[in-house]
Amino acid sequence: MTDRKTECSVALTGKLYRPSVHFTPPTGFMNDPNGLVFDGTQYHLYYQHNPDAAYSANICWGHATSTDLLNWKDQPIAVPDTVDGQAYTGCAVLDRDNRSGLFANAHGTNIAALYTRSLPTRQSQYLAISDNNGQSFEEYAGNPVLDIGSPNFRDPQVIFHEPTQKWVVVIAEVDHHRIGFYASNDLIHWTHLSHFGPAGLPTVNYECPNLIQVRDEAGAMRWVLFVSINPGSPMGGSVTQYFIGDFDGAVFTPCDAILRLTDFAKDAYALQVWSNMPDSEAVNIAWMGNWQYCQELPTRDWRGAMSLPRSMTIIQDTNGYPRLVQKPRGVEKLRLPLLSEANRYLAVSTRREIPLPVGKAIEIVIRLTADEYRQTEPGQNGPVINRFELAFANEEGEKLSIGYDVPSSQIWLDRSKLRGFDHPFFTGRFAAPVNTAYYPDARSVDLHLFLDGCAFELYANEYLETATALVYPARPLDRLRLVTEGTGFTIETLEIYTLDKTMCRATL
Amino acid sequence: MTDRKTECSVALTGKLYRPSVHFTPPTGFMNDPNGLVFDGTQYHLYYQHNPDAAYSANICWGHATSTDLLNWKDQPIAVPDTVDGQAYTGCAVLDRDNRSGLFANAHGTNIAALYTRSLPTRQSQYLAISDNNGQSFEEYAGNPVLDIGSPNFRDPQVIFHEPTQKWVVVIAEVDHHRIGFYASNDLIHWTHLSHFGPAGLPTVNYECPNLIQVRDEAGAMRWVLFVSINPGSPMGGSVTQYFIGDFDGAVFTPCDAILRLTDFAKDAYALQVWSNMPDSEAVNIAWMGNWQYCQELPTRDWRGAMSLPRSMTIIQDTNGYPRLVQKPRGVEKLRLPLLSEANRYLAVSTRREIPLPVGKAIEIVIRLTADEYRQTEPGQNGPVINRFELAFANEEGEKLSIGYDVPSSQIWLDRSKLRGFDHPFFTGRFAAPVNTAYYPDARSVDLHLFLDGCAFELYANEYLETATALVYPARPLDRLRLVTEGTGFTIETLEIYTLDKTMCRATL
Repeated sequence: MTDRKTECSVALTGKLYRPSVHFTPPTGFMNDPNGLVFDGTQYHLYYQHNPDAAYSANICWGHATSTDLLNWKDQPIAVPDTVDGQAYTGCAVLDRDNRSGLFANAHGTNIAALYTRSLPTRQSQYLAISDNNGQSFEEYAGNPVLDIGSPNFRDPQVIFHEPTQKWVVVIAEVDHHRIGFYASNDLIHWTHLSHFGPAGLPTVNYECPNLIQVRDEAGAMRWVLFVSINPGSPMGGSVTQYFIGDFDGAVFTPCDAILRLTDFAKDAYALQVWSNMPDSEAVNIAWMGNWQYCQELPTRDWRGAMSLPRSMTIIQDTNGYPRLVQKPRGVEKLRLPLLSEANRYLAVSTRREIPLPVGKAIEIVIRLTADEYRQTEPGQNGPVINRFELAFANEEGEKLSIGYDVPSSQIWLDRSKLRGFDHPFFTGRFAAPVNTAYYPDARSVDLHLFLDGCAFELYANEYLETATALVYPARPLDRLRLVTEGTGFTIETLEIYTLDKTMCRATL
Repeated sequence: MTDRKTECSVALTGKLYRPSVHFTPPTGFMNDPNGLVFDGTQYHLYYQHNPDAAYSANICWGHATSTDLLNWKDQPIAVPDTVDGQAYTGCAVLDRDNRSGLFANAHGTNIAALYTRSLPTRQSQYLAISDNNGQSFEEYAGNPVLDIGSPNFRDPQVIFHEPTQKWVVVIAEVDHHRIGFYASNDLIHWTHLSHFGPAGLPTVNYECPNLIQVRDEAGAMRWVLFVSINPGSPMGGSVTQYFIGDFDGAVFTPCDAILRLTDFAKDAYALQVWSNMPDSEAVNIAWMGNWQYCQELPTRDWRGAMSLPRSMTIIQDTNGYPRLVQKPRGVEKLRLPLLSEANRYLAVSTRREIPLPVGKAIEIVIRLTADEYRQTEPGQNGPVINRFELAFANEEGEKLSIGYDVPSSQIWLDRSKLRGFDHPFFTGRFAAPVNTAYYPDARSVDLHLFLDGCAFELYANEYLETATALVYPARPLDRLRLVTEGTGFTIETLEIYTLDKTMCRATL
C-alpha cells in the first residue's frame, strides 16, 4: 500500500539526498538535538543517535562541535546506551563558576548534562559531568536524581534562573499531558514547583520542553516555552507548539489563549535551543523528521537531518499576535553568487527557467509584487486567480513547488510532485497565510529558500512563517522555474546562491 | 501551475461528482448552511447561494426543507440579495409563543431570521420575520438592528437563554479575532454582554460562531462554542474550531486551554447547528468546502455540498480530554445491503477486492483487529510496520485510501492518488491518532465511511474522529480493496451498503 519504490538505486539515494550544509549523522539514525550549549569557545550539538542502523534503537548521544553552528566536526559518542537505559533527550549547561558544587574547578568549562535514562518500564533523569570540554561525561553516583516512578517522564532542559538564583528544569510529564517545573541549587536535589498544561492541541505525548527568553521588537525579553507533541499534529504526527508568556522562576503563565506552531510543514520536531549564547541570542535547531515516517525514509544507510540553526526574535504580526520570527543564522558567509537581479518584470503567463547546478545546496532570496488588481465586482466574472509559482524542477516532470496566491494572501509548499518517496503519512501540500491583515492590498511576498539534498527550508513574510520539509525527488532537480498566472509580477529582487559545503558527508 | 486537467469531460464531471444523499445546490454556488431550524413539522436548511454561477457573488439564501434531514425538497430563494447588501450568513429561530412581540400570532410557526447584510464597506445585522412557515421573510423596517460600523461584523446566531429569559446572539467581531455576545428581549434592541477570544489558532477571520448545549456521557448539558476560521488552518485555509465550557447567559468560559478541531481533513467549514431540535438533540451540518479552492472545483455548473447531518454528544477520550462525538444521523433507513460478514481473517499481505456499483452512494462499516504483536526489542529488527488499508479504487490506478497504522495508532486518509482535480492548496493526505492512550495495545480500529459522488466522510474511533473530504477521481471508483501489510487482521464486522438516493439531482 505504501508503494515505496524509488526511481534511484539505493546506493544513489544516500548521496542524492545527503545535505551538504545541514547536519546529518555519519551513519545510522538521528532524531532529537540534545544538550545544546556554547562552552565559551565552541558550540556543542549532541543528538539522539543509533550509529548501527537507520532506525530508532539503542539510543546514545552522538556529538559534534562547531565554532559557527554550520561547520560541524564529528566527535566520539558522548553518552552511551547502558544497562540503565537508552540515553534519551536531555540538556547540557555550562556551570562556569561551579554554582552546583559538582566540579573540581571553581572556574572553567564545567559542563553538566541532565538526560533521561529510558527503560521499558521506567524513565528517570540522570546527571553527568564532563571534565574534558564535553567530550565525554561521568555519571553521578547517586543517579537517578529525578524520578517519579513513571515510564513516561522525560527530556529535561535546565536553565539557571538569575532572579531566584536557582537551577530550574522543565520536563515532560508525558502521561499527564503537561510540563513539570522543578528547582535545584545543586542539580542533584530537585523540588517540584508547578506544571503547565494541558494546553494547545489535545494530543498524546508532550515531549522535549524548552524554556528560553527571546527578545521582542521593543527590546524586552519574553519567555517562550516550546512543547513538542506526538502524535496529534493537525498536519499529521509530530509538531512543535510554543507559548509566549511570563516565568517568575516557579510558574509559567501564557500571555494569551493562542496556540502557535513553529512550522507550517511537518518536519521540524523536538526543537531545542542553545544555552549560554553570547548576548542572550536565542538560537534553535529542530530535527527534520516526523515519527510518522522517519524510520522508513528512502535513505538506508543514514536517516535524520537537522534544520539550519535559527536565530529567534518576537514581533507582533499584522493581526496583533506576538509571534516568533526565525531567521537562518550565519549562512551568508557560505554564499557563492549564481544570479542576482532586480526590478525584472514577468508578464502574465510567463514561464521562465533558470538552470541550477546539481549536488550543491541552493539558496534563493526573492521578493516580488503582483500588478495592481481590483477584486472583480460580484457577478461580473469568476473568482480572481492571481498566482506566482517558483518550482525546483527537472525534465522528468518532477517539481517542488512554492507559490503565492495573491487574492487570499496565502503561500503554498507542494512536495507532492516528487517521486522518490511515497508513504500514506507523507503529506504533500502545506499552506500558510501571509500579510494577514483582513482584505489587505497584499500584493507583495518575500520568500527565502534553501534546498540541500533532502533538506528543504522555506521562510516567508519577513520570517514569520517557516516551513521545514524533507523532499525526495527521484532525480536531481536541475532547474528553477518561475511561472505567473492571471497577473504580472515585478521581481524586486532575486538572488540565487550555491552554498559552500560545510559537512564532510559524501554527497552526489 | 495548477494543472487543472481532468480526464473526464466537463459534462460528465457534473454528474460523476454529484452526490445522491448529500445536499447540493440545484445550480450555481453554495457555501455556508444558514438559518437551521426545526419548525415543529419540518427542518429548514437555508444556505449561502449564488444561483447564477458556480462561484461566490450576489449571495442570497437558498432554501430546502425536509422531514428527516436527508430527503430535501427545494424551495424558492428565501432571502434575496438586495441594494442593502448580499444576504450573508445568519440564523432562524422559532418564536412559538411570540416572546419577541414581533409576530401577529401569539402562538404559531413564528420564524424570525437574523443575518448579515454585506456591502463592501459595511456589514450589519438585519432582522426579518416570516408569516408563511419560512418560505419567505419580510425585513423589519428599522434595520439594521445591530451595527457597529464595521466592514467585518457578521454571521449572527441567536439562541433563547432560558435561565435569563433573553435572546442571546453570538456574532463574529472579525477584525478583533473574537466572538461578541449580545442580549435582547425583542430581537430588535441588543445590549453588548461580553466577548470571547482571541483563542485557538492565530488566524485572520473569525466567522460563523455557533453556541449550543451538548449532552455529555454523564447526561449533563455542556456548552459548546464553534468558531470557523479562515485562513489559518494548520491543514491550510478554512477550519472549524470549538471550545467546550460554561455559558451563564453573558460570558462564555472554556473548561480548559485545549484547542479542538471538528475535523481532521479540510472540507468541513462554517459548521452550524439546528435550533429547536426535539429532546435538545444537538445536530450539526457543515459546508464541504474550503475557501482555498471552493471556486475552482471541477464541477462547472454547480459547486458546494453539505456534510451529512451529524448528531453530537461529548465524551472523555482515552487521554482525558472531553471531546465531541459526531455521528451521521438517520442514514440507516436508506441502506440497501450489499455485503455483510463477520470474523473473517485476512492473512499478512492479503490483497482482496470487492466490486462496487457505480453511481450509488456507498456506506461501509468495518471493525478489525490486528494479530497480536510485540514491539521488537531494540536493535533486533527495523521498525514495526503493521498496516491495514481500505481503498476505493479503479482499473486506472486511482485510489482513495484509508488506513490504520497499528504501532502508532494512527489512521490516514489519502486522496492524493485521485486525478480529477489538482490544485496547489488541495492537500492530499490527512492523519489522526486513535485509541490514544500512551503505548496502548491498540490493535483494533473501527471505521465508518461514506462515498457519495465528490462527498467523502470518514468516522473513526467510536466517532471521536471525523474527516470530511471532497474527492475527485477522474474515473468512477468501482471496487473496494482491502490490503494488509506486516500482520494479519481479523475483520470482526464488515457491512457494505448502497444508499437510497434522497436528492433529485442528476447523478451518473
